[in-house]
Amino acid sequence: MNSRTPIGSKPSPCNLLEYRCSTSLIPRESSALVNTRIDWKEIPEVHVFKADIPGLKKEEVKVEIEDDRVLQISGERNVEKEDKNDRWHRVDRGSGKFLRRFRLPENAKMDQVKASMENGVLTVTVAEGNEEG
Amino acid sequence: MNSRTPIGSKPSPCNLLEYRCSTSLIPRESSALVNTRIDWKEIPEVHVFKADIPGLKKEEVKVEIEDDRVLQISGERNVEKEDKNDRWHRVDRGSGKFLRRFRLPENAKMDQVKASMENGVLTVTVAEGNEEG
Repeated sequence: MNSRTPIGSKPSPCNLLEYRCSTSLIPRESSALVNTRIDWKEIPEVHVFKADIPGLKKEEVKVEIEDDRVLQISGERNVEKEDKNDRWHRVDRGSGKFLRRFRLPENAKMDQVKASMENGVLTVTVAEGNEEG
Repeated sequence: MNSRTPIGSKPSPCNLLEYRCSTSLIPRESSALVNTRIDWKEIPEVHVFKADIPGLKKEEVKVEIEDDRVLQISGERNVEKEDKNDRWHRVDRGSGKFLRRFRLPENAKMDQVKASMENGVLTVTVAEGNEEG
C-alpha cells in the first residue's frame, strides 16, 4: 500500500470538506490560478499543508483562520507589465487570484498555526491535540 | 487584440518547435512534473522564458544549450521522505523529473544565455541579434 494515496483513493472534489466547489466565491476573470496544487498530510500532532504558488512573495499570500476551523489560503499573482512590442510564443503560466479553504477536524488547535514560504512553496502547519493520546 | 495571445492562437503541442512530443525522452514513472508551465516571450533583443518550478533550488535546475539552438531546461523535484504514520488527506502536488526543450530562431545568440531563480520561478534570457536592425 502506498501511504501517499489520499484517504479514499480518488476523492470527489468536495468530500474532504474542502470548499473547492463553491467557485462562486472566486471572480470568474481571475480563476487562472484557482488550481493551485495543495497537499495536506497529517503527521503525529500536526497537520501539514503545502501549496505550490510560484512567483509569489510571502507578503502576497494570506493565511487566515475562519470560524468553524476553516483554514483559508489566498493570494494573487499579478499579470506582468506588457509592452505592445512583446511577442508571445507560448503562454502557459496562469495569473490572477486564488482562494482555497479547508475545514480541519475537531482536534485541530486553530490558535497554533504557522506559515512559511520557500522557493515558491507555502507550508502551513496546524497543531492538533489528541484527546485519546 | 490581446498581445498575450500566443502566435497562432491555439498552437498544437509541436508547432512551436518545442520537443514536448518526444515523451520517450522522459521515463514514465517520473512524468508528474512534465507539465511544468513555461512562458516564452520575445521582447526587443531578447527571448525570455519563465518556468514555474516551485520547490526547486537553483542548483536543482539545469539549463543547457544543445546543438542547433536548442535550449533545454530540466530538473527534478524529489518526493518527500515519508513515514508510515503519515496520513494523506490530499495529494495534488507532483514530483519527479521534468525536461523541456525549445528550439530558438536563427538570430538567437546561444552564447548569451542567462538564468536566475526567484520564488520558484526560473527565468532564462537568450539575447538575439537582429541582422536587419
